[in-house]
Order: sequence, then structure tokens, then C-alpha cells
Amino acid sequence: MNLPEVTRQASPWVRESGPHGDVVLSSRVRLARNVAGFPFTNRASDVQRQELLNACRESIFQSPLAERLIWVDLLESSKQDRQILYERHLISRQHSHGQVPRGVVLATDESFAIMINEEDHLRIQVIKAGLQLDDVYAKADQIDDLLESRLEPAYSAKLGYLTACPTNVGTGIRVSVMLHLPGLKITGEIEKVRRAARELNLAIRGFYGEGTEAVGDFFQISNQTTLGRTEREILRDFQEGVIPQIIEYEHNARHALAERRSTLLEDRLQRAYGLLTHARLLSSEEAACLLSYLRLGVGMGCIPGVELTTINELFVLIQPAHLQRIAREKFTGDERREFRARFVRERLSGPPSN
Amino acid sequence: MNLPEVTRQASPWVRESGPHGDVVLSSRVRLARNVAGFPFTNRASDVQRQELLNACRESIFQSPLAERLIWVDLLESSKQDRQILYERHLISRQHSHGQVPRGVVLATDESFAIMINEEDHLRIQVIKAGLQLDDVYAKADQIDDLLESRLEPAYSAKLGYLTACPTNVGTGIRVSVMLHLPGLKITGEIEKVRRAARELNLAIRGFYGEGTEAVGDFFQISNQTTLGRTEREILRDFQEGVIPQIIEYEHNARHALAERRSTLLEDRLQRAYGLLTHARLLSSEEAACLLSYLRLGVGMGCIPGVELTTINELFVLIQPAHLQRIAREKFTGDERREFRARFVRERLSGPPSN
Repeated sequence: MNLPEVTRQASPWVRESGPHGDVVLSSRVRLARNVAGFPFTNRASDVQRQELLNACRESIFQSPLAERLIWVDLLESSKQDRQILYERHLISRQHSHGQVPRGVVLATDESFAIMINEEDHLRIQVIKAGLQLDDVYAKADQIDDLLESRLEPAYSAKLGYLTACPTNVGTGIRVSVMLHLPGLKITGEIEKVRRAARELNLAIRGFYGEGTEAVGDFFQISNQTTLGRTEREILRDFQEGVIPQIIEYEHNARHALAERRSTLLEDRLQRAYGLLTHARLLSSEEAACLLSYLRLGVGMGCIPGVELTTINELFVLIQPAHLQRIAREKFTGDERREFRARFVRERLSGPPSN
Repeated sequence: MNLPEVTRQASPWVRESGPHGDVVLSSRVRLARNVAGFPFTNRASDVQRQELLNACRESIFQSPLAERLIWVDLLESSKQDRQILYERHLISRQHSHGQVPRGVVLATDESFAIMINEEDHLRIQVIKAGLQLDDVYAKADQIDDLLESRLEPAYSAKLGYLTACPTNVGTGIRVSVMLHLPGLKITGEIEKVRRAARELNLAIRGFYGEGTEAVGDFFQISNQTTLGRTEREILRDFQEGVIPQIIEYEHNARHALAERRSTLLEDRLQRAYGLLTHARLLSSEEAACLLSYLRLGVGMGCIPGVELTTINELFVLIQPAHLQRIAREKFTGDERREFRARFVRERLSGPPSN
């Protein structure tokens, strides 16, 4: 199957600015679930995996969710399609590279995705723009209820939800927020945030989650363990405690930069804008770095005429698989850098043509 | 005295594009002359120097040249005025820093300058835009004749004109051409030109002549010795031999760059343009480097809407003393970098307001 034309744009939640959109790109809740009576994915045979896959897929498509769903069989998908799903944060790296029968159910508006046969049988993931974890959790909980009425979960009265990895046992929830923290990065205070997060037993990761670097000064903050605390407690910590605190730190850092070294900062931001609108070759690393400065400049009101959401979308679309999809061509590295530079220039010089 | 308001612009010959203006910024002829009956400047007492100064000044201002001349007494001039004359290539570094009675006579259109009490009693210098050495020499020769009819030159029938340094003995002529050679610099072939020049006994120097670095890929090529050859021979070598050859090398280098690595080159040129039109802080070194790329881009037709002469003028006006004169303020280093960036941005975004 081919992913629809919609992949020439970023996901809808990237193209809107949610609450605290200057700092918070997105809120995400992921629930890990397994189906009773089937071995965990990594201990199952391919026959068992296929059976589980069929059962889950049928249950989901028989549920009231079915109306606006897309099914993607990842074993049959092209490498480019899998890469695109990964670049859109709809599947994990592991799920894009796997060799076993597996798939993903997507909402047509990409507001949620259900991976089947990832580390757990089911990974329900809901994403929204900005800081709105309560809404995100409510949606995930609703999907979970709909599935549980059709698929009996692996559940222990003592431990809660059983999962392939012990760190997920209990609620099976992972709450994560994608933050844009260029101010803290420039002032060096990001290290303080890292230390504080470690003490609170939170993980700080890069743009693509586990094991990835911070691309474009984006940092994903998420809970590490789920045992012994309720979903509501974990959510409240994030929504009312940790995340507002980091947003305040980031705002303070931006203010301090603007006051102490305003010209130096404006120089950096404007140079980034100048390079993005003039370069003829752009690597993805340089583009992400420059876009981060541009996003900071727009967030601080220094660069008029550019929307935050345009920049958010560029972060997604400048990635290799997306660029090839947009160009409908196979690229060499140089061609890709050239196309990326042209694409960024055109997007920043006006509204998208489609 | 204060240098006139005209110093808020570059010299007229900088603001016009002469023959081969894409490569040749200017042609210059300098004649070294001494007045019979006075010791050389470096061997004279200050009383003798003042006498020589008065005699020369009077003779010049009694000549038909007088109508459009400015007299600048450098011992009484402000440091900023002296620096401005140096930045405009109207006096040498030595002459701007000297401690002895000395001065310079300037044509109001800055097409020539006569330094008094530099290394020699008189240094007659004529400059024009582009490659037009014959015209430049004709003018220098005319001035020389006018002065010789009033001041007897130190001259030996055997050696020719006598000068303080033996390298100038004979014709006392130095012919020099300021070339913009970014193509040869990028391809590395500038080293070949350096070697060839050494073999031809020519000097390659930087933007400010003797002992200076190549700023903005400008190279000044001049003859080294004057003994045993006539002025006409030296001129013909330059006008018909050496310089056209280097211009051809530079054109070939630009063609090769455009053909072999067109996107890479365009990327560099456009990035320079983007930075010049967006940076909020610019050091003189970075500005010169970026302006050199911009000049190359304009010369190659890649960057429309910018005139070569605008860039030529910027090379002069972004220098420290000129910037202070334009701003009418004393700057710290940071303020100067900020003012320089704003000035460059404004000049490149439209015609000068004055």
C-alpha cells in the first residue's frame, strides 16, 4: 500500500499551535497493552504473531473507531513508507525496522496510532499540539476501553497491566511532552533541567525519543516507571508540576538573553533566517539547528511574517523520506540537500502552494 | 581642519566601474620625486622638513592644478582624519602615523594625491577605476611636468630620479593594479599567480599595499624595481601582458567553478548575501569576506539587484574610521560591529539615502 497524499504535509497536530505552543510542540500519552492468552511478541512464533495481529486488527476495525482508520501492514510496506511513519512520530524506530508480522492502525487525522506487535502486543498512542495532557489521556483511555471490551488484557490484580518490559508494568502508561528549549540550550541551563529530571526519575530524550539526540533543541520529557502510581498522579505531576516549571525556566532564559545580550541574540536569530532563506544546500542537521533559532526568534516576536506552525511543519518535512515523497524522486545526498534548501526557501517565503 | 562631508561616501573612482570592473577595482601610478638642494626626508631636520613642505606646498598651489585642491597638514590633523585618508588609499600607513612635518595635497575628486615628506619629498599618486593605466600614467606625467617646472628634481643623468630607497631609483614609478580574485582564491590557483608574479619580479600585496593581508580577496599587483626600464615599458607589461593574463585566469576560474560545482558555489554566494542582509553584528574581517563573495556573485550574474559599485563602496565605508565618521559617534567594538551590520543591510536593501 502507499501512504496517502496527505504525507506531503505534516500531521495535523504539527500544523496547529496548541496551548503554550511557543515552548510545547506536543503532548503524547502511550499505553502498553497485551492480550491475554498470547505470548509476548518477542517470545511468540511468527504464526502466533500473525494470529495476534489478525485478532487485534479485526477487533479494532469492528469497534466504533473504525470509521476513520487506516491499516498499514508494515511487513508489506515500502521502506520509504515505514520511514515516513517514523519521521511523523507515528511508529517507533524499532517498529519501522522490525522483521516480524506487525502493523499500525492510524487515525486518518493522525491524532492517534495503535502499533501491533511492537515490544507489546498493542501500543496505543495519542498526540495533540501544545500542552493538553488531560485531553490526550482522556482520548487514550477511551480507545483503551473500546479495545478492552473486545480483547481481554493481560492483567494482574496485584501488578496491574502486564508488559514485556518490567518498566512498563502497572499502568503501562508513558506520558511525554515534546519541548522546544533553545533558550535553556543557549544559556547552558539545560544541564540543570537534565539533573532535575534525573532526580524526579524522568527521562529527557531527543526528537525521536529513546536513544536519539536532541535535534533542533527539541527535548522529549517522559516518565520512566509506571508501577505504584496511578495514571492521574503521573499526569498531574506533568500537567501541573514539571512541565509548567520547565516552560517558566525557558521563558526566563529567553528574557535573560533578550535583556543581557539582545544584539548578540538577535544576530544569531537573524543570521539563521538569512541562511534559511538564501542557502542552496542544506543538510538536515544544519536545517534543524537554523530552524530552531528561527522558531525562537518567531516565539520572541523578533521575526515577523513567519508562523510557528510553518516552522513546526518544516521540521517534519525536511527529513529524508518526506523530501523524497514530496519530490517524487530518488535523491543522491547532494540532490537532497539542494531540494531541502529550495523547499525551505519556498515555504518561508510564502504560504504553501498546496 | 576637518575632512569634508564627502568622506561619508567613498572616493568617486570607487563609485564607478571602469574597464574590466568585474576583476579590476583600480589602476594606480605613483611617482617618487625629491627636490634638489634638500636632504632626503629621513635625513633632514624638522626645520628642513618644514622648509621643504612649505616650498612644495606653495609650488603646487601656484600651479594650474590649484583650482581644485585640498591641503591637509597631517601633523595638525586628528587621528580619525588621518585614518580616513589611509582607509581611502590616499596616504600610506607610514604617512598617517608619522611624527614629522608632513602633509598631503588632494584633488577634490580624489583622482590624485601628492604626499609631502613621506619616504621621498614628493609622492605623486593617480588612481582611476578599472584597468586604465595609460590614462593614469598620462595624468601622473602631467602633474610631474607641472611640478618640475617649479621645483628642481633630484636627478642624475646616469641613474635617473634619485630616491630615498634604492628600489625606486631610476623612473621612480610604481604601477599597481588592485584586482578582485575570489575565483582564483577558491580554486587555490592564486598560488600559481603568486609564483608567476615572483618570477616576473612583481609584488603581490594585500588591500592596503606593502605588508598587508589580502582583505576580501583583493590583491594589489605592482612592479618591484624601476631601474633600467622606461616608464612605457613597465606600463606596457602591465596593461597588455600581466594584467590581461590574470583577468583571463580569474574568468577561467569563475567559469570552472560555475560548471563543476555550480550549486556549491551558488550556495556560498547566496549564503554571503543572506548573512550580509540579516546579520546584526559584523566584524570588518567577516564583512570583507562576505562582500567578496557577494562581489563574485554579482560579477557572475547570480545576484540581481545589487551593483558592483555599491559593493566597492561598502569595502571602503565599513572600515572603522569611516563608520565613526558616518555615525558621528565614538564607538566601542560592539557598537561598531552593530552599526556596520545595520549600515551594510541598509545599503544592500536600496540606494543610499544621501
